[in-house]
Amino acid sequence: MTHQWLERPRPARLERRMEFPDYESTRVFLERLGERSERAGIYPDISFGRTYVNLTLHAEGERVDEPLHQLAAELDSLVPGPLVA
Amino acid sequence: MTHQWLERPRPARLERRMEFPDYESTRVFLERLGERSERAGIYPDISFGRTYVNLTLHAEGERVDEPLHQLAAELDSLVPGPLVA
Repeated sequence: MTHQWLERPRPARLERRMEFPDYESTRVFLERLGERSERAGIYPDISFGRTYVNLTLHAEGERVDEPLHQLAAELDSLVPGPLVA
Repeated sequence: MTHQWLERPRPARLERRMEFPDYESTRVFLERLGERSERAGIYPDISFGRTYVNLTLHAEGERVDEPLHQLAAELDSLVPGPLVA
């Protein structure tokens, strides 16, 4: 999957939007994300509707570092099947 | 529970923020909300983090009507236990 996260400053963060073909895919992704968050104790800011999810990962320091990019790639891997966008 | 939804114009909508004591309560509320959305085919805009959920209910016409207020009250009833705010 293409790494479509955007890096933004003030505060330093990674953001991406995912679009899903139906609510079922959205729900499955959110469930996996919830399990992962609980396991790791890391809770991204999430907004979603029936067929989309917006994610924000905040950097702990002033810059987005490699571990945060790795986390982003990990979250991509939780997506069930192909995304619409 | 107090009805703490705010009515806003352009586009007409109801909004409220809920704060939960822990992620477990947030998760239970989101699960119930997801089941209800699927049953009714109505999907609010939702944003959340570990211990909060922001909800937006969009009116279908130009005004927030009584059925939308009823829906809002129904969503309040899905909250597990007391809210922090």
